[in-house]
Amino acid sequence: MGFSEYFPISGKLSDAERKKLESSAVLKKISKGSVISGVSGECTGLILVKSGRLRAYINSDQGREVTLYHLLERDFCLFSASCIMKSVQFDVFISAVADSEIWVIPAEIYKEMMSRSAVLANYTAEIMGMRFTDVMWLVEQILWKSFDRRLASFLCDEAEAESTDRLKMTHEQIAANLGSAREVVTRMLKYFQEEGLVSVYRGMIEITDKKRLASLAES
Amino acid sequence: MGFSEYFPISGKLSDAERKKLESSAVLKKISKGSVISGVSGECTGLILVKSGRLRAYINSDQGREVTLYHLLERDFCLFSASCIMKSVQFDVFISAVADSEIWVIPAEIYKEMMSRSAVLANYTAEIMGMRFTDVMWLVEQILWKSFDRRLASFLCDEAEAESTDRLKMTHEQIAANLGSAREVVTRMLKYFQEEGLVSVYRGMIEITDKKRLASLAES
Repeated sequence: MGFSEYFPISGKLSDAERKKLESSAVLKKISKGSVISGVSGECTGLILVKSGRLRAYINSDQGREVTLYHLLERDFCLFSASCIMKSVQFDVFISAVADSEIWVIPAEIYKEMMSRSAVLANYTAEIMGMRFTDVMWLVEQILWKSFDRRLASFLCDEAEAESTDRLKMTHEQIAANLGSAREVVTRMLKYFQEEGLVSVYRGMIEITDKKRLASLAES
Repeated sequence: MGFSEYFPISGKLSDAERKKLESSAVLKKISKGSVISGVSGECTGLILVKSGRLRAYINSDQGREVTLYHLLERDFCLFSASCIMKSVQFDVFISAVADSEIWVIPAEIYKEMMSRSAVLANYTAEIMGMRFTDVMWLVEQILWKSFDRRLASFLCDEAEAESTDRLKMTHEQIAANLGSAREVVTRMLKYFQEEGLVSVYRGMIEITDKKRLASLAES
């Protein structure tokens, strides 16, 4: 399958637009661990993931990283090409969590097509809204309320008390213990799972990296 | 002057689009202090500021507020109508800092026009990118590096040492003292000024609300 089968709104584009986008996209193989984007002022291009898994994150002066979101098959990344919009002025690092295949679309070509296509511009706005929602959630839960630390601490304490890394409890029960909402617990557990700290099953949470979970609990 | 003179991209719209937007916009007077938007699920509509000043902020469970950005004359606000994009799922509160006049465009009308207009969709994406940049800056400087607290603390200490609320120092000097960059100091001082904590002059910073600045320094 080619680029157009992976790009979510191919069906809404004209034949000419679809062909132009497809012919400009370059397929690249990326090894696990390599950093694709993040150098200030650099404009890598837009990324469409064919296979694998990428991670978008920001980096503090002190070397602490905060994951903003993950990119999986068919996910589209704007912030590797923040130059397509003059108003976007921040740097997001993107690295490969697993060996990955990605298409890179040159920023200039996308920018020019987007300026004339309502479909592409609306899609771009939707994607930005999605990432914005992720970041606002992080602001509220992690940087502000320290809910990541509180949940990590709770899981470590429970594992200690029950002498097991497989905790049989529902998200509702955890939420009740932490004075939070089930939705918040579910989303943070998903975030933990993406970070490799736990595995989430129906009615059970398995701690898969106790050391890192404990260090998050004590951060 | 009417709506079209204030809306930044009127000149790029077709006559029909401009007329439709103008006729749908309702001019409202808002008293200082009133909250315009923020109730979950509510979709107030898009806001264009004619006069006055609005503030967009988020609210923690503990009642702490963080200002995201201010809206002045000719500024356009999307997040009072987050329903225009299904991917935007967070609530931003908007209140009037001064008596203001605003135009409100019904979300449904804007959404429908944006779906067909590349100009409107690109403008919407640009505005979102601008707000996203503001929020990323806040994440990095305030919630993460506590630069707001460090700068407030520095200004209070200097005022104490010099026995004056009018500090004669450049942004470069402050940056050097705090191990930061001039641009970061300038932007945070602008943020402080918008919050009413200081007034910034050429070569001089006047502390205008010492009590709140001190409480920020100790937070």
